[in-house]
Amino acid sequence: MSENNIAYLDKMNLPADLKKLSMNQCKTLCIDIRKALIDTVSKNGGHLASNLGAVELSLAVHRVFQSPEDKIVWDVGHQSYTHKILTGRAGRFHTLRQEDGISGFCRPDESVHDAFISGHSSNSVSAALGIATAMKIEGNPHHAVAILGDGAFTGGMVYEGLNNAGKSDTNLVIILNHNEMSISRNVGSVARYLSSIRTKEGYHKTKSVVERTLDKTPLLGRPLKKAIRGSKNAFKNAVLHSTMFEDLGLEYVGPLDGHDLEELEQGLKLVKSMQRPVLVHVNTIKGKGYAPAEDNPGEFHGIGSFEIATGNPDVVASDSYSSVFGKELTELGHENDKICAITAAMKYGTGLQYFAKAFPKRFFDVGIAEGHAVTFCGGLASLGMIPVFAVYSSFLQRGYDQLIHDLAICNTHAVIGVDRAGIVGEDGETHQGIFDVSFLTTIPNTTIYSPSCYDELRACLRKAVYKDSGIVAVRYPRGNDNSAARNYNVNTFYEYNDNGNGVLIVTYGRLYQNVQKACEILKNNHIDCDTLKLIKIFPIEDEIIDIISSYKLVFFFEESYYHGSISEKYAALCNNVAPIAIDDFVKHGKPADLLDELGLSPQKMAEQITGFLKL
Amino acid sequence: MSENNIAYLDKMNLPADLKKLSMNQCKTLCIDIRKALIDTVSKNGGHLASNLGAVELSLAVHRVFQSPEDKIVWDVGHQSYTHKILTGRAGRFHTLRQEDGISGFCRPDESVHDAFISGHSSNSVSAALGIATAMKIEGNPHHAVAILGDGAFTGGMVYEGLNNAGKSDTNLVIILNHNEMSISRNVGSVARYLSSIRTKEGYHKTKSVVERTLDKTPLLGRPLKKAIRGSKNAFKNAVLHSTMFEDLGLEYVGPLDGHDLEELEQGLKLVKSMQRPVLVHVNTIKGKGYAPAEDNPGEFHGIGSFEIATGNPDVVASDSYSSVFGKELTELGHENDKICAITAAMKYGTGLQYFAKAFPKRFFDVGIAEGHAVTFCGGLASLGMIPVFAVYSSFLQRGYDQLIHDLAICNTHAVIGVDRAGIVGEDGETHQGIFDVSFLTTIPNTTIYSPSCYDELRACLRKAVYKDSGIVAVRYPRGNDNSAARNYNVNTFYEYNDNGNGVLIVTYGRLYQNVQKACEILKNNHIDCDTLKLIKIFPIEDEIIDIISSYKLVFFFEESYYHGSISEKYAALCNNVAPIAIDDFVKHGKPADLLDELGLSPQKMAEQITGFLKL
Repeated sequence: MSENNIAYLDKMNLPADLKKLSMNQCKTLCIDIRKALIDTVSKNGGHLASNLGAVELSLAVHRVFQSPEDKIVWDVGHQSYTHKILTGRAGRFHTLRQEDGISGFCRPDESVHDAFISGHSSNSVSAALGIATAMKIEGNPHHAVAILGDGAFTGGMVYEGLNNAGKSDTNLVIILNHNEMSISRNVGSVARYLSSIRTKEGYHKTKSVVERTLDKTPLLGRPLKKAIRGSKNAFKNAVLHSTMFEDLGLEYVGPLDGHDLEELEQGLKLVKSMQRPVLVHVNTIKGKGYAPAEDNPGEFHGIGSFEIATGNPDVVASDSYSSVFGKELTELGHENDKICAITAAMKYGTGLQYFAKAFPKRFFDVGIAEGHAVTFCGGLASLGMIPVFAVYSSFLQRGYDQLIHDLAICNTHAVIGVDRAGIVGEDGETHQGIFDVSFLTTIPNTTIYSPSCYDELRACLRKAVYKDSGIVAVRYPRGNDNSAARNYNVNTFYEYNDNGNGVLIVTYGRLYQNVQKACEILKNNHIDCDTLKLIKIFPIEDEIIDIISSYKLVFFFEESYYHGSISEKYAALCNNVAPIAIDDFVKHGKPADLLDELGLSPQKMAEQITGFLKL
Repeated sequence: MSENNIAYLDKMNLPADLKKLSMNQCKTLCIDIRKALIDTVSKNGGHLASNLGAVELSLAVHRVFQSPEDKIVWDVGHQSYTHKILTGRAGRFHTLRQEDGISGFCRPDESVHDAFISGHSSNSVSAALGIATAMKIEGNPHHAVAILGDGAFTGGMVYEGLNNAGKSDTNLVIILNHNEMSISRNVGSVARYLSSIRTKEGYHKTKSVVERTLDKTPLLGRPLKKAIRGSKNAFKNAVLHSTMFEDLGLEYVGPLDGHDLEELEQGLKLVKSMQRPVLVHVNTIKGKGYAPAEDNPGEFHGIGSFEIATGNPDVVASDSYSSVFGKELTELGHENDKICAITAAMKYGTGLQYFAKAFPKRFFDVGIAEGHAVTFCGGLASLGMIPVFAVYSSFLQRGYDQLIHDLAICNTHAVIGVDRAGIVGEDGETHQGIFDVSFLTTIPNTTIYSPSCYDELRACLRKAVYKDSGIVAVRYPRGNDNSAARNYNVNTFYEYNDNGNGVLIVTYGRLYQNVQKACEILKNNHIDCDTLKLIKIFPIEDEIIDIISSYKLVFFFEESYYHGSISEKYAALCNNVAPIAIDDFVKHGKPADLLDELGLSPQKMAEQITGFLKL
């Protein structure tokens, strides 16, 4: 992997030296950065379209504000690559998302310029308000700047943040990077509302200018009359210039052209001078400057490696756990018209596009709003519908209270498709799906399946929908099923290979493949083990306890955080279980490499067992 | 306990027969209901002020809508008592909040008229939208009605719900019961905004009427001119009638006088006819009809028993774990000006009023927004402040993702005062604090203290603030410390009474008192046990493992859900531990009674141990 053509930036004192550049130099820099973005993401995968849209904005922010004294908080981090390049990480940018390389998200331990962690949506206003408040308490005159896309505005945390920001007397700047997309096209009335103000003629005077003008006009002036003749919204926005944000107590500036550096800098300088909470509305184009991404921003949101000339992915998409889940759910949707599918802004990521197309009236994309999604499922189910919420493991954390309160207490039947369960790899610790087993098992009336192949996934989903009650989680990993094709009766409980050995290896999910390989390695070392693959992993079953109890020694490998894990639970009930699970957050890297470091590769599994038996 | 004077209602066919009442009969009924509310709450405790404010509203809703075909969803449930009385529970109303009596919140298993569970704030729009959507799918022409206070509008879930409601083509009615209070006075710019539209002259025509009028006025009419002369907000609201809710795609009707039955019914009938998502703004007075509650709605929000004539509580408030926490934190605030205190709308409940008064600039009431609160702490801490977030155990569930993402990943130091940990009693399963140990232990970089008396609470808080790193939870129960005064060195780790017996009892928190009593009972039966009281309960410590491992048999009593409990963790590590914890949701009742049913009273502890030893 070669360095990018922006490595020269690391010889500058960044971000401070950016202020010395002429406007022409800035424009050249933007071209170089876009090239580096496309080049690196085409090789390493990552988030492309959102980053291409935020090049000028990132540069303008760093020319107007003074990081790290001013604190820049990037929401989600999908648009932070240029920020990384401009703050001393240009030379290492080609290591993006590689193990020991730079992260695809903001990490305070990676750079002093990453003011707050990013990865999960809609937290930036709250974090930046905390920072701005600390500055105020300390008499620090600097600014906290939150930068978030309109997609993040579908998450309730943003409103909790705005509700507190509006009344705060802080130097808080909230930049709305408005591209009308979150990952796919935005949903909901907030998106529609933001678009209605997006189309307004750009000006970045503050409201007070307009108000002064109005005050000087005893009879209604021409502009006001003209506006009144137009639509109500246009009137309200263009003349009274009153937006929802002003209703919430913020100043509003914008919309600014997010690809016009001069306009951006002028607007941000004004904002910086205002010394109170401001929302700056910036219009950008997702994928800007790379035709394939501008044409298909959804496809180039998060992407694997691809060919630059055409934008074609290097690997032709094959089936994945997500697509198999989505297709099977569509089958079920044909059989039963009570089934509804819900996603939190991840229609494609979770494979629900098939269901959405077949049953548009029973498909719901609720935006980045996992809490709402769970409770909405509760409402649907209360009238006899069968809701299936497909969601990434790490994002389901946002719905924890709602799972307990709005589903479990009433033992409401809802199916949760927990996608990206286990190690996800390059996206790092904010995205690893290693907590869902731990937190789902703390919820009464919950059943959890963890199939190890496509056939089991289909069978578990079917059972979850038709046979089980309460919350039923079906969890499956990112990516493909690489297990060997086999001819066997698929079941949804467990698969036990009892060859009369004294040692048993227990596992579940895709780790079963590693266990099978580990058994071969062990066999070559003359150690024979029985295996037990769990498919229904929770609740704890007496039948499993009986099997486990019949062994002298049991190794339980688990791609999950140890505390609250299934192996911990069996260890508490049987005194012969050695749990091997994950004991901390897991950084970014290739899944196979990470599993190896965690002791969950076939080789490491075999080594641990051998070592233990030698004791 | 005697029946109330409303028992006659149970002889009617309710709620259907309400429609047959004359307006005068309705007014008499409201008087009777208010008397019953005051009477019952004065004896049983409960939520008074909010319920007094919603008497006419509840009656109007049940006269205009047709429950259970129309589904009424009460947010939180603090205002659902009249609804309960009007739907067949009048005769049993005097059993409110008693074990086997009716719940203080809405419970679908208590009545078909309780359309959805209530207890945690801000979920009603999402639930009702789910219900309305199911109706639409099924071609069911009925309505889903969400009723929520303005306090609930400080929670982000409401916006996630509104964002999805606005675009939905459903029969969803959202009633904003606006009393300008949540528990204490509302905070944030949303509250300010709602108040700005509250003061508008009441009319319940729809926007289209206004628009038609404007269309017919080629020159600006008198009303428009008049409005423009007023403030911008008044103009916008009164003439263009454009509210934030309309920006979000909802119809807006109101504000209605929430104590004028005729106006309420007229407004709700209009709304019912609209057949699309509507927000109805209803102004009410918290505490209406009972002078002490009108004067002090905060005090009469959730209250114990009291004397009706004066409104004076039956028990003079003494110190509680909450007040001790709050006072100690105030001490710390004097010592260290980096300490900030945060509450999510529970300033008095968590004892933070002392800190708020002493350090108003370092005190933050963020509204009912636990997710925001946690991330806001992260922002404060990133600049070196020491945030202390005091929150009820069951409400902290809303901040689970933020604890992981915005605090734990960066090992950020923040202190969480987990109030109402363990069994809370009469408020029932939505409020029992039995999950915090289970979910907090799933979060890396987390330390948990569970002091058993005031002295330990003070010491743990001090250690959490000054010595520990990462997330430090200090958890303590509702109510008072009833432990005997003792003269000993307070510590924050454990207290071990080693008398050389073969049986050890382990516990933590207030349950230690029950263990001490159980030991006396056992002693009388000639069974001697050693005891180990944990104070720092997590992470698991080798020193504790060593103590536990030295015994033949260990009983671990825990006022926590079993899965994820500390006893489960030690059982997984030591093969001699018998965990006795909670294995399901816990309904409402007196804490002592509930603990007895859970096997956690002194008598039941002794019985279990005796039974086990006899095996």
